Amino acid sequence: MEFKTISWENGFVKIIDQRELPLKEVYLKLKTAEDVYKAIKDMAIRGAPAIGILASYGVALSAMNENKEKTIQDIKLLRSSRPTAYNLFYAMDRMEKLVKEKFDKELILKEALSIHEEDKSICDKLGKFGAEILKDNSKCFTICNAGALATGGIGTALAVFYKAKEMGKKIKVFVPETRPFLQGARLTAWELSKNGIDLTLIADNAIAITFDKENIDAVFVGADRIAMNGDFANKIGTLGLAIISKYFNVPFYTVAPTTTFDKNMKDGSSIPIEERDDKEITEIKGIRIAPYNIKVKNPVFDVTPNDLLSGIICEKGIIRKPFDKNIRKLI
Amino acid sequence: MEFKTISWENGFVKIIDQRELPLKEVYLKLKTAEDVYKAIKDMAIRGAPAIGILASYGVALSAMNENKEKTIQDIKLLRSSRPTAYNLFYAMDRMEKLVKEKFDKELILKEALSIHEEDKSICDKLGKFGAEILKDNSKCFTICNAGALATGGIGTALAVFYKAKEMGKKIKVFVPETRPFLQGARLTAWELSKNGIDLTLIADNAIAITFDKENIDAVFVGADRIAMNGDFANKIGTLGLAIISKYFNVPFYTVAPTTTFDKNMKDGSSIPIEERDDKEITEIKGIRIAPYNIKVKNPVFDVTPNDLLSGIICEKGIIRKPFDKNIRKLI
Repeated sequence: MEFKTISWENGFVKIIDQRELPLKEVYLKLKTAEDVYKAIKDMAIRGAPAIGILASYGVALSAMNENKEKTIQDIKLLRSSRPTAYNLFYAMDRMEKLVKEKFDKELILKEALSIHEEDKSICDKLGKFGAEILKDNSKCFTICNAGALATGGIGTALAVFYKAKEMGKKIKVFVPETRPFLQGARLTAWELSKNGIDLTLIADNAIAITFDKENIDAVFVGADRIAMNGDFANKIGTLGLAIISKYFNVPFYTVAPTTTFDKNMKDGSSIPIEERDDKEITEIKGIRIAPYNIKVKNPVFDVTPNDLLSGIICEKGIIRKPFDKNIRKLI
Repeated sequence: MEFKTISWENGFVKIIDQRELPLKEVYLKLKTAEDVYKAIKDMAIRGAPAIGILASYGVALSAMNENKEKTIQDIKLLRSSRPTAYNLFYAMDRMEKLVKEKFDKELILKEALSIHEEDKSICDKLGKFGAEILKDNSKCFTICNAGALATGGIGTALAVFYKAKEMGKKIKVFVPETRPFLQGARLTAWELSKNGIDLTLIADNAIAITFDKENIDAVFVGADRIAMNGDFANKIGTLGLAIISKYFNVPFYTVAPTTTFDKNMKDGSSIPIEERDDKEITEIKGIRIAPYNIKVKNPVFDVTPNDLLSGIICEKGIIRKPFDKNIRKLI
C-alpha cells in the first residue's frame, strides 16, 4: 500500500483525512477520544473495520490521559459515533472489558494495537479466499470503498483484487461512484489506481447497463453488519447492486471479518440504518444542486437479504448456503 | 405550468436554459438553426419530445432566413445533435418532406407550430390515461425528467402526476437524483415542487431501499426511443429501476407519444446509445470529484427489455402485452 489509513504514533493516532481525497493527501493527528469521535462522526475516516480500529485507539488515548471513569464515558461516546457498523461495537466491547477488569494503560494500548494487527492479517486471508475463486481475465464489480482505506490492512472486498493481482491473475474492476458520499469515485478509484488495478469508473445509474454489455464474473462488496441468517447491511446501493446481479445471474459475495457478525441479530430486519444530513444529496462541495424547500431522504446503508448472496467470505473461509446453519457452525 | 420550456416568438425561439436550473431561471433566444443545434447538443434543452419540437423550430428559423439548400443542410445538422431520442428524427422527417416538396416559409413555420401543438395535446392524453390507473394515496416513482421541461406540454411521465392531482387523487412521488446530469434533482424536483406535487428526492443508490421500505404502487418513466417489440431506450438508470421494480413486483410503465416508436427497429438491440464526456462523471460544476488518469465510461441511456414493462402509455391508450402484436395494431 502506498499510504497508511491509520497509524499509532507516540502518543497520538495519525489518519488520512478521507474527505480530502482524491485531490489532497492530508493527515490528521488525533490526540483524544473526542478527536477520534469527531473524525468518525464527520467521516474523516469511514469503513466498518477502520472505525473499530480507530475507536480502539481512541480508548487507548483516553486511558493514557484520563482516569478509568472518564475512559468508560469515552467508550460510551465512541459507541455513539455511528450506528450501523458492528465492528465498532465488537471493538468497544473488547476494550471495555479490559478497561473495567484492569485499568492498565499499557495493556489497553496493547489491546488496541492487537485489534489493528489482527485486522491486517484478516484482510490478507479475505483477499486470498476471494482471489482463489477468480479465474484469470475476470471482470468484477464492487461498490463504495471496502479497501485499505476502510480497514487496518489491504481491505475486504478490494483485498480480493489486490491478491488476485499478486497471484498473476488479470482482472478488470468496475467501480460505481457511490453517491451520495462518492466513496467509489473518490476513494476506491484512488486506491485501486494507486495500486495498479485496472478500473473503470461509472455512474451508479450505469450499473445495470454495464452488467448487460460486459460479462461480469463476480461482485465483491464489504459489510457493515451481518445478521446470523446472512442478511447484511452495507453502503446504500448494495441492495440494488445485489438485485441487478441476481437478474444477470452473477455471483455476489460479501467480504468481511467475522467481527462484522452480530450474534444478537437473527435477521437483517432490525439492523439500525443511519440517516445522514440532506445536504449530502442537495449539495456537492457546498454547491447547491437541488431546489430549496423540498423533502429529501438520505439513508446511507441498506440491508441485502441472504437469498441474493452467493457466499460470505470471512477469514475462516467462504460461508455458503444454508447461511443460518453454516454461520452458526463457523462463528 | 409556471414556466414555458419552448416558445415561438416573433422571429426567434425562446427556451429556458435547463443547465442553470434549479437555482436560476435563465431564458435563451435562439435565432438560427446553429443556435438550436448547439442548445440541443450542449443540453440547454433535453427530453425527447422537446428536442423534436425545438429542432422543428430550428428548421423554421433556417427557412425564414436561408435558401432551400441551406435549410436541407441545417436539417442534416440538427439530426446530428443527439443520437438516441427518436422524436428528433420523426420531426426532421416531417419537416424535410415539407421543405423538399414546397419551400414555403409560412407553411414550414406552421408545421413546426403544429408539431408543438400536437405534443401539448398528446401530453394531456398521456397524463389522463396514466392517472386513471392510479388509486388515491398512491406512491409513485420516476427517474430523470419526463416533465414539462422535456416536452411541449405538461410532460409524459410527470403528466400522470399532474393529471392525478387535477383528478383530486393524493400522490407521493419519489425522485432519484439521476446522475450524472442530475435531471431528477435539478429539473424534476424543481418542476414538481413548483406545481405542488408531493415529492421526495433520494440518491439513485437509494432506489432499492425505498421500494423495500415504502409500498410503491407504480413507476412511470419517459422513453427516448421504443422498438416495435416494446424494448425501449431511456435515461441511464432506467434499466436498473425496471429490474428493481420487477424484483419488488411493482408495475412499471413507460409514458411516451407514438412519435417515439421507431418502425425500423424490431427490438432494442440496435438502438444507438449516446456516450458523453467523462467530465460529467469526474467533475461537478467544474469541481473534480475523482482522481485524474482513470478510465471512465459514461453511457447516458440504457435499453429496458419489454419483459420488464407492464405497459406503454401513449396518446392512443395503454399498450399491454404481447407488445409486438399490440404495437403493430395501434401504430
